[in-house]
Amino acid sequence: MTSCDVLVVAGTHGNELNAPWLLEQWDRQPELIDSLGLSCRRVIGNPDARAAGTRYLDRDLNRSFQPELLAGDGQEVELRRARELLADHGPSGASPCRVALDLHSTTAGMGSSLVVYGRRPADLALAGGVQRLLGLPVYLHESDAAQTGFLVERWPCGLVIEVGPVPQGVLESRVVIQTQLALEACLQVLSEARSGLGHLPRALVVHRHLRSLDLLRDEHGQPSALLHPSLHGTDWRPLEAGAPWLRRADGTVLNLPEDAAHLTPVFINEAAYAEKRIALSLTRREVWPVLPTWMEALKELMDGC
Amino acid sequence: MTSCDVLVVAGTHGNELNAPWLLEQWDRQPELIDSLGLSCRRVIGNPDARAAGTRYLDRDLNRSFQPELLAGDGQEVELRRARELLADHGPSGASPCRVALDLHSTTAGMGSSLVVYGRRPADLALAGGVQRLLGLPVYLHESDAAQTGFLVERWPCGLVIEVGPVPQGVLESRVVIQTQLALEACLQVLSEARSGLGHLPRALVVHRHLRSLDLLRDEHGQPSALLHPSLHGTDWRPLEAGAPWLRRADGTVLNLPEDAAHLTPVFINEAAYAEKRIALSLTRREVWPVLPTWMEALKELMDGC
Repeated sequence: MTSCDVLVVAGTHGNELNAPWLLEQWDRQPELIDSLGLSCRRVIGNPDARAAGTRYLDRDLNRSFQPELLAGDGQEVELRRARELLADHGPSGASPCRVALDLHSTTAGMGSSLVVYGRRPADLALAGGVQRLLGLPVYLHESDAAQTGFLVERWPCGLVIEVGPVPQGVLESRVVIQTQLALEACLQVLSEARSGLGHLPRALVVHRHLRSLDLLRDEHGQPSALLHPSLHGTDWRPLEAGAPWLRRADGTVLNLPEDAAHLTPVFINEAAYAEKRIALSLTRREVWPVLPTWMEALKELMDGC
Repeated sequence: MTSCDVLVVAGTHGNELNAPWLLEQWDRQPELIDSLGLSCRRVIGNPDARAAGTRYLDRDLNRSFQPELLAGDGQEVELRRARELLADHGPSGASPCRVALDLHSTTAGMGSSLVVYGRRPADLALAGGVQRLLGLPVYLHESDAAQTGFLVERWPCGLVIEVGPVPQGVLESRVVIQTQLALEACLQVLSEARSGLGHLPRALVVHRHLRSLDLLRDEHGQPSALLHPSLHGTDWRPLEAGAPWLRRADGTVLNLPEDAAHLTPVFINEAAYAEKRIALSLTRREVWPVLPTWMEALKELMDGC
């Protein structure tokens, strides 16, 4: 195997079916997606979980890329798979890739968005370029001690494309189309960065992760109130002070905690986060000036041999 | 245990979370749902699958109630559970129940509906009474050799309450509320039947099952075209002749088979039916005159000791 520009990963969670389907159709029909001169490697992130129709077998693959875990002697299915992906396509792997694009879906009504982990200049350039092309919102996931070890963090540049709403285990044309559009925009930005034609907007709008909120729970840890129906599908819309927040079965309503007012929720009622006790995550919308160093970093990465 | 009027089953599929949550809240707060003088027994259909967060472990519990299977020596988790439910609450069980209400959810955008299996007069009376109260559509599932062995068929009267759309593994207030409304309507009809005050409409609108359609598949059995996006959420709306039906990844479109025109689709893209190779089921809308024998059968059942 030789080195390549872009590692495109789908099915990092085995019950997210749309991106793997898109990649397999692309395998069969190479002209389906124009890679614009970039060499792309397509892989299924967690084939064992996909075969089982579950998010993961032993542990969440997309929380398994902490260096200390990878270096340890854990033998969970997903740890072994994380090591394998890095040995094959990591920066020091047999067939190294420069950039990792990890394609996901969510049950939340978030539309298409990008998730960026931390503030690496090349990541911000890629996200900014896609935001210029498609206007997608960017969720900046950082400072979250409970959620670490994301796949793309182990590559010099990378981000997650997240599309929803779609139930787990469902193939849906609309989700495939949205995934393809976002992927093509990423490839366009990477190709233009290499050729020196990359354009960034003057500002990048990010939704910076602050913290997550859980439901109300009883003495056994079971939910005793659920998200209020008025919150359904309101991802990316700032929360109003005193708005309905939770609803008990008897119809009584708890209002939003004061310190959540005016913050912007994402991943509202994502199925996979119930076990993580996340009913939604709170972000703050920020407008960042784009620095020239961002595109320089991305161009340098794409230029290198 | 003593006999009871109504067996209310939730979580027959372990990844449908809303009805079990409603039943547990009802356990803790007995006034949450007014049973109108009826004695109700609440059970979780498949607790093992629920603990695992999957639809089932060995086989679909709601396809496990065929008499020949139950009488056989199969030892799958769900067969044993089916026998147990019947031994506990079946017509000849230790604590027999007259009516079984089985609460389900679907990923399809069907809203609330009732599913009736076959044409038993008491079932049709119950469905007709609920249709009079709430206007819910009734899916008459019959003549489907590939789908048999439904739980409620083993009780003298029973139906499924089906609410969607909701992803598997997601708790959602709206779905809980809709489930409760439909359940309360069933209890009202049963209570009124007992007291002789039962009213039925002059006609019952049913959507009678004809057959199911699958996606297009490649030589490995994998989908090579998905449902066209325009079909998303169009359950209960008659299909138009020549309308878009499937979409390949490259955007080419296959139109609806001629013999599906003007039929009414249900369970469009239900996650759990992918493995059964059902992309949707086709029904014919029919308006049936209500017969006096229906309510007589229901009244007799509710009257008996």
